[in-house]
Amino acid sequence: MSFSKKMELLAQAIIANSWVLDENQVERFINLLIKSKNVFIVGAGRSGYVGRAFAMRLMHLGFTVYVVGETTTPAIKRRDTLVAISGSGETESIVHIAKGAKKQGAKIGVITSHLKSTISRLSNVKVQIGGRETAQLERDYLVRQIRGSHEPLAPLGTLFELSAMVFLDTIINELMYRKGKTEAELKKRHSNLE
Amino acid sequence: MSFSKKMELLAQAIIANSWVLDENQVERFINLLIKSKNVFIVGAGRSGYVGRAFAMRLMHLGFTVYVVGETTTPAIKRRDTLVAISGSGETESIVHIAKGAKKQGAKIGVITSHLKSTISRLSNVKVQIGGRETAQLERDYLVRQIRGSHEPLAPLGTLFELSAMVFLDTIINELMYRKGKTEAELKKRHSNLE
Amino acid sequence: MSFSKKMELLAQAIIANSWVLDENQVERFINLLIKSKNVFIVGAGRSGYVGRAFAMRLMHLGFTVYVVGETTTPAIKRRDTLVAISGSGETESIVHIAKGAKKQGAKIGVITSHLKSTISRLSNVKVQIGGRETAQLERDYLVRQIRGSHEPLAPLGTLFELSAMVFLDTIINELMYRKGKTEAELKKRHSNLE
Amino acid sequence: MSFSKKMELLAQAIIANSWVLDENQVERFINLLIKSKNVFIVGAGRSGYVGRAFAMRLMHLGFTVYVVGETTTPAIKRRDTLVAISGSGETESIVHIAKGAKKQGAKIGVITSHLKSTISRLSNVKVQIGGRETAQLERDYLVRQIRGSHEPLAPLGTLFELSAMVFLDTIINELMYRKGKTEAELKKRHSNLE
Repeated sequence: MSFSKKMELLAQAIIANSWVLDENQVERFINLLIKSKNVFIVGAGRSGYVGRAFAMRLMHLGFTVYVVGETTTPAIKRRDTLVAISGSGETESIVHIAKGAKKQGAKIGVITSHLKSTISRLSNVKVQIGGRETAQLERDYLVRQIRGSHEPLAPLGTLFELSAMVFLDTIINELMYRKGKTEAELKKRHSNLE
Repeated sequence: MSFSKKMELLAQAIIANSWVLDENQVERFINLLIKSKNVFIVGAGRSGYVGRAFAMRLMHLGFTVYVVGETTTPAIKRRDTLVAISGSGETESIVHIAKGAKKQGAKIGVITSHLKSTISRLSNVKVQIGGRETAQLERDYLVRQIRGSHEPLAPLGTLFELSAMVFLDTIINELMYRKGKTEAELKKRHSNLE
Repeated sequence: MSFSKKMELLAQAIIANSWVLDENQVERFINLLIKSKNVFIVGAGRSGYVGRAFAMRLMHLGFTVYVVGETTTPAIKRRDTLVAISGSGETESIVHIAKGAKKQGAKIGVITSHLKSTISRLSNVKVQIGGRETAQLERDYLVRQIRGSHEPLAPLGTLFELSAMVFLDTIINELMYRKGKTEAELKKRHSNLE
Repeated sequence: MSFSKKMELLAQAIIANSWVLDENQVERFINLLIKSKNVFIVGAGRSGYVGRAFAMRLMHLGFTVYVVGETTTPAIKRRDTLVAISGSGETESIVHIAKGAKKQGAKIGVITSHLKSTISRLSNVKVQIGGRETAQLERDYLVRQIRGSHEPLAPLGTLFELSAMVFLDTIINELMYRKGKTEAELKKRHSNLE
C-alpha cells in the first residue's frame, strides 16, 4: 500500500468517528464552554498536546483558558470548567485532577472513548470519540490493514488523539460561528513573539 | 450544516492533502530520520504540539529524540537531524534555530506548505503538506463552506496542523513497519509515570 | 572543604550580589511592573526556569502575567511589559523576542549581568545582577576555591541564575508589602490541581 | 529595611539551611545519582522549576536524565532513580508518581523539609532542606522581619525552593569534582539552539 493511501486511511477513520458522534453530547459540551467563567484544559501525553492545541485556539477566540500544570495557571473555582482529554478515561493523574476540580465545585467535561470510565463518571458532560476499540469500521480498516502484518496502522491511542484533535477544531469553528468571531479577530490575539 | 458534517469536511481536507503528497519527498524524509544519530524536533505554537506528539512516538519506536527547548535537550551535532514543522516556513524563531542547526553541520528536514520559504531553503529534505492556500479543493470546500459566512471552516494554520499530524502518524506507521516494531514494543517504552 | 561549606559559599556569593545592587534600578523595575497592564516573562534555559518561578508568584499576587511560549499566552501590546532574564544579555532567541516586543510598543525590563549587552540596549529598565565575571569577590571566592581544582564552584551561568532567583523573590516580597497582600491571599490563587 | 538588605536576609536563610544539612544524607544522595542508569526528576510548581534547572546541569555533566512529563521521557525501570522535590513531601501528584516509580522497582530520592512525609516514607534516600517551619533561625529572621508587618519575607514554599536550588547546584559542583568534569565539557553539551 502506498504511503499516501495509508495517510488517507487514517483520515478515513477520523471520518468514521465523525459519523458516530452524538450531537446532543456535542451541544452540551459547547454550552458548558460558553457558560464557564474560566476553562482549564488537561490531558496526559499526546492527548495533552491535543488539549494544548485546543486551549490556544480558545484563547484566540477570547476565552479565559488555562492549561493545568503551566506556570501561570491559577486556582480553579466554582464557576470554572475542567476539560479532560483521555481516551481510556482512566489515566491516573487525570483522575486525580478531575477529583480535585470536582471538590472545588468546578464542572467537568470529558472527551473520551469510554463513557463508563472513572473520569466519565466524575464528569458533568461527556463526549465520546471513537478509539480503536470502539468503532468496528476502524478495526476492520486499520488494525490489520497491511497484509501480513499483525500490527495496527494506528498504534496505542493514535486514532483517539487524531479524532479528538479534528473534533476540537470543529468545536472551534462552531464557537467562531456562534460568537460571530472572524479569523482576523483570532489573529489579533495570536502570539506575536514567535 | 450539522456538526458531524463539519468534522467530516475537515477530515476530507486532510484526505485531499494525502492525495497531493510527493512520495519521493516522503521517502527522503524517512531515510533522513533512519540515518540520523539523534533527531531534534522544533515547531512554534500548535505546530510545536504536533511536533511533540511526533517526538513522543519516535521515542516509543526507540529513536533518540529531543524537543528543542525542553530541559534535557543537549547540543545538536553533525550527524543529527533537526525536523522543523512550519506551515509558512517563515516563523522567525524557527528560522533562527534552523540556521543554528545548519551551522553545527546538522541536517534539516522541514514539513511545510511552502517549498520556497526561508526554512525550506535551509533544509536538506522538504515535505510539502497543503495548507489552506495550496489546495484548490480545500479552498472550495472549506473557506466559505458555511452559507452566509465569510469565515473559514479551518482558521489560521489549522488545516496544515491537522494534516501534518496525520502525516507524521503515517510516518510512525511506516517506521514501525520498516523497523519491524510491534505495538507491544512501543508500549514498553511509553511513560509509566502518568 | 565540606559539602555544607561549599553550599554556604554559593549563598555568600548571592549576598555579595545583593550588596552591589543599584537601588534606583530596582525601584524603576518595581514601578515598571506595577504600571504594566500585562507582564510577559521570557528567559532561555535555566534563566527561563527562574523566570517561570517569578511568573508564578506574580500570578499569586494578582498580576496578569504570561510566560512567552506557553500555550495560552496572547499577543503583547502597547501597555504591556516584557521582562527578559539573560545573564549575558546576548541570548539570540531572547534578543529576537525583545525586538518583537519593542516593535509592538511594549516596554522591556531586563535582568542581566551586562548593562551594555544587546538586550540591555533594547530595554527601558535594566537591573544588573552580578554573574561570575562581574564581582571580584565572587571570582576570588568561587572560581578557584577548591584547592588544586581549576574548575569553578559555580559553572556557566549558575551564579547569575541563583542570584536572579533570590533577587526576584525579594521583588515579590516588596510587591506584597507595597500592595498590602497577605500570604493567605497568595495561597488562594495558588494552583489547587496538583 | 533597604531592598538590598532584604535580599541579603533571604540569602542568609539559605546559609542557615546549609549549616543544618546532614552530610550523611548528602553522601547517600550523591551515590544514588552516580549508581543510577537513568535519573528522572519530578516536582510540582516552583519546585518543578528547581528540579528542571538541576536536570539541565545533570545533562551537561553527561547523565542520562529526564523530567517526568516532558515529551520524550521514556518508561522508568528497575535500575533508574526518581528524584522528587517537594517541600511538604505531601504534594498529591508527586506521591502518585513516587508510588508508580516504586512499583517499577526504581529507587527514589527525595529533597524535602519533612522526613516523615508520605513521599519520604516511599523514598530510599532523603535529604532534609529546611523550609520556614523547620529552622528556628529562619523563623526569627524572616517571618516577621519587617516591623509592623505580620507577613513573611518569604511566602509559601519560597525558602525551601531557594535553598533546594542552591543545594542542588552544590551537588552539581560535587559531581563535577568527583567525575573530574571541566566547565568546558559542560559547555559542549549545553544546548546550542537558543
